[in-house]
Amino acid sequence: MSVIAELIDALKRLPGVGAKSAQRMAFHLLERDRVGAQRLSKALAIAAERVVRCQRCRTLTEDVECAICANPQRANGALCVVETAADLQALEAATGFRGQYFVLHGRLSPLDGMGPAELGFEQLVQMLRSGSIRELIIATNPTVEGEATAHFLAELAKDAQVSASRIAHGVPVGGELEYIDKTTLAHAFGGRIGL
Amino acid sequence: MSVIAELIDALKRLPGVGAKSAQRMAFHLLERDRVGAQRLSKALAIAAERVVRCQRCRTLTEDVECAICANPQRANGALCVVETAADLQALEAATGFRGQYFVLHGRLSPLDGMGPAELGFEQLVQMLRSGSIRELIIATNPTVEGEATAHFLAELAKDAQVSASRIAHGVPVGGELEYIDKTTLAHAFGGRIGL
Repeated sequence: MSVIAELIDALKRLPGVGAKSAQRMAFHLLERDRVGAQRLSKALAIAAERVVRCQRCRTLTEDVECAICANPQRANGALCVVETAADLQALEAATGFRGQYFVLHGRLSPLDGMGPAELGFEQLVQMLRSGSIRELIIATNPTVEGEATAHFLAELAKDAQVSASRIAHGVPVGGELEYIDKTTLAHAFGGRIGL
Repeated sequence: MSVIAELIDALKRLPGVGAKSAQRMAFHLLERDRVGAQRLSKALAIAAERVVRCQRCRTLTEDVECAICANPQRANGALCVVETAADLQALEAATGFRGQYFVLHGRLSPLDGMGPAELGFEQLVQMLRSGSIRELIIATNPTVEGEATAHFLAELAKDAQVSASRIAHGVPVGGELEYIDKTTLAHAFGGRIGL
């Protein structure tokens, strides 16, 4: 395989990048942005080598503990469980949450080989039993597997006598009832909050 | 800047990749595809170092001459001028053209610093005057700048007494007249072909 074909093939492994986009990216870098290509090459090599999981919350970091876990002010007893590091970033950017996180790196999905061991449940149970956690906020995605995972997590919290909560599901802000799918609308109606 | 932030930043330089996609790509590679990250890193480094322009047609290649120029059967006197290496690929994939190409790597655009020198017109004129070219097929894009470039190229061919042709512009196959823009429709109508 030629050098260009190999580059296009390697770019195709990126999520959301098909044959056309990969070709466009390759030609763009080679025709107009060699510096960008070298910079990306270096960034990939360094990140692939250095980035590890935080020992405490399992998010991606280059240190033993991530910046959030290393910050003593965030050990306020609230622990938010998310599926991915991207979900953690999204919550950090959108909410004023000042507690800590726990990243599963997936959701319960036995067919894909994702069981309690892969998701770090043992480590989570230890944290819950240590007495330092006051509330477990379950922020897995509202998919079938995410809900099953949330149910499992709620049981773990109950066993450890830690109160658990689930982020609310309902009509998105700015959404119109007319265009919302039935399941979400039923959720929103069933989960209505007294004023 | 952290290693992850630097990777996201480097990914953002790819065409069509914004902040969200770059983050998704970075987390995907770091969480699930380290092998892919290393492979892409290596492919980028090798391609950025080894890929050069073909001495004859200026397309991207890792040899002195690209595979098309090196094939004596393709020296049949037909030369097709395109703006980019991607356009060359598209024509190779779609047409049965068996001649050679010349890649401009741009179009006439004085404001962007793209003049005859940058587009390799001198080299092209030499080829036209060498007597080995029978027909010049101008396949620049049907944009204002592409048309200006096509006009300029036609003049060069005329000066060298080489016959020139322009690829046809009109209603795309499968398109419906009702939804085609006015300029294209006027082009298609004006350029109608006798049956």
